[in-house]
Amino acid sequence: MSDEPLPIGLREVSEATARLRGVAVRTPLLHDTLLDALVGARLLVKVEPLQRTGSFKFRGAYNAIARSTAPAVVAWSSGNHAQGVALAAALLGKRATIVMPADAPRIKQERTQALGAEIVFYDRARESREAIGAAIAERTGAAIVRPYDDLDVIAGQGTVGLEIVEQAAELGLLPDLAVVCCGGGGLIAGCATALRALLPQIRVYAAEPAGHDDTARSLARGERVANAPGVRSICDALLATEPGELTFLINRRLLAGGLVASDAEVCRAMALAFSELKVVVEPGGAVALAAVLAGRLDCRGRTVAVVLSGGNVDPDLYARVLAGC
Amino acid sequence: MSDEPLPIGLREVSEATARLRGVAVRTPLLHDTLLDALVGARLLVKVEPLQRTGSFKFRGAYNAIARSTAPAVVAWSSGNHAQGVALAAALLGKRATIVMPADAPRIKQERTQALGAEIVFYDRARESREAIGAAIAERTGAAIVRPYDDLDVIAGQGTVGLEIVEQAAELGLLPDLAVVCCGGGGLIAGCATALRALLPQIRVYAAEPAGHDDTARSLARGERVANAPGVRSICDALLATEPGELTFLINRRLLAGGLVASDAEVCRAMALAFSELKVVVEPGGAVALAAVLAGRLDCRGRTVAVVLSGGNVDPDLYARVLAGC
Repeated sequence: MSDEPLPIGLREVSEATARLRGVAVRTPLLHDTLLDALVGARLLVKVEPLQRTGSFKFRGAYNAIARSTAPAVVAWSSGNHAQGVALAAALLGKRATIVMPADAPRIKQERTQALGAEIVFYDRARESREAIGAAIAERTGAAIVRPYDDLDVIAGQGTVGLEIVEQAAELGLLPDLAVVCCGGGGLIAGCATALRALLPQIRVYAAEPAGHDDTARSLARGERVANAPGVRSICDALLATEPGELTFLINRRLLAGGLVASDAEVCRAMALAFSELKVVVEPGGAVALAAVLAGRLDCRGRTVAVVLSGGNVDPDLYARVLAGC
Repeated sequence: MSDEPLPIGLREVSEATARLRGVAVRTPLLHDTLLDALVGARLLVKVEPLQRTGSFKFRGAYNAIARSTAPAVVAWSSGNHAQGVALAAALLGKRATIVMPADAPRIKQERTQALGAEIVFYDRARESREAIGAAIAERTGAAIVRPYDDLDVIAGQGTVGLEIVEQAAELGLLPDLAVVCCGGGGLIAGCATALRALLPQIRVYAAEPAGHDDTARSLARGERVANAPGVRSICDALLATEPGELTFLINRRLLAGGLVASDAEVCRAMALAFSELKVVVEPGGAVALAAVLAGRLDCRGRTVAVVLSGGNVDPDLYARVLAGC
């Protein structure tokens, strides 16, 4: 494996932390006796559903938009990235345009608009959101804020990892292991950058939904491979088709491997987050906890940092999960 | 009104804060754009469902048990106080006995036992839990940990108020108003002690369920009055029949008044805590937010601290609340 320096390091994550101070929530790092007993380890659970707009995405969006000199931004997303970009742009006094499929759930449209963004709809079957976004950027001078394959976004997401180390130290603990969910890989690339810089011995694992384990397989193979199309998953936030270029460049160097959780395991983790932690977690946000609770990682006797990444879940689905799926 | 000094002050709350450092969770103080827009004020929401055992009760129990020299403790409760006492005693290496009605929900029995406490059941219709608890204390030398009418318990709960001031200051804000739920009155008595000492101009309001507004009416009357028996409420954690002696001594001097919320208003607040804050709140824990959202307090343009006090709610009830009650 190459010894070439990685494109970002602890310095960029620390700078992002300074930018986010007083703007992002320093979300708590929780521990719980019953969860510890279930896995025979000490779990430290980082709670990003409490982040502004309900997910970690706000961190990377704010860092990238704060670093940009463009007067406006454009992004494509129907989910958490859209809301993160919309709020970050509003706080920084910039116009935001979000390219969203015409069939996106109304609640996601409304929330994004309520945060002050303009929405441009496209036809999922016939148009390319990337092309539409690029055309808007070209025409208006807006900067494109990519959901994960952007170094400023990755550095912003990395503030989650930096906070984990600080907050664990406040409890007198050093994590041996960390498990972070992975779609395009921006959150885990940023977290691994901070975690491995501060705790060189830590082993960081990606968690993915079953059938969407492109990063696990890419890590094993040493090159990017895509998911088979058409596999369904409850984890709507984690359905990137393959690892990002920049994120995989980082993740192949810093990660110890990939873990997988089934939909049923994700539902169980959501229900335990409800009953034990009192935190609302969306399916994609629970996959790291699900993999740990399902025993996918040998962590007996260890201290394990686990990231819950977001909590934007429909109440109907949530009620079904509480009823046992 | 008397100028006699109150039985506790900021000093006792600060000492409790030192005792709880690294033991209790410093729960976050959240703010949310949509909630602010709904009331036309800036809300700072203190999230005690994330406290260990799922409610603020752990704070007061730990402070009282840490101060006691007895080798064991006894308490009576079927709810949040039981779990708070059980965990605090376990952490401090003391035996805990909890007197609980024989018909208490099995989940509450199991959780209390899982935390290492011994349960003594009693017949709600024919026996007095106070008499049973006193007999156990007499026989075993255990210290009684009262749910609210105890100065060490009140000082421990007051750490919630002290943290609110610290965390608001970190955001560059000073609350003008605070709203705190009130059953026996321990949480609000402690919070008001800290808040009024640090921010003498702040106005602190009790929030109670409709039909259980004994503190609101007692404050208006200047003496303790009880609730009419038999009024039902969804807020099972807030059904004390009258204000405590010590708590009312403090609250009548420090509170600005009492607010009331209906069951429907409480359900709406729980649903907004789900969708906006991603926090699971039990009915009694949501009554302060409910009263503010229902417009019971003129707070336009103000900065308002609101305490969510606990999140121990049955999944069936929670699913019904999300479905619109």
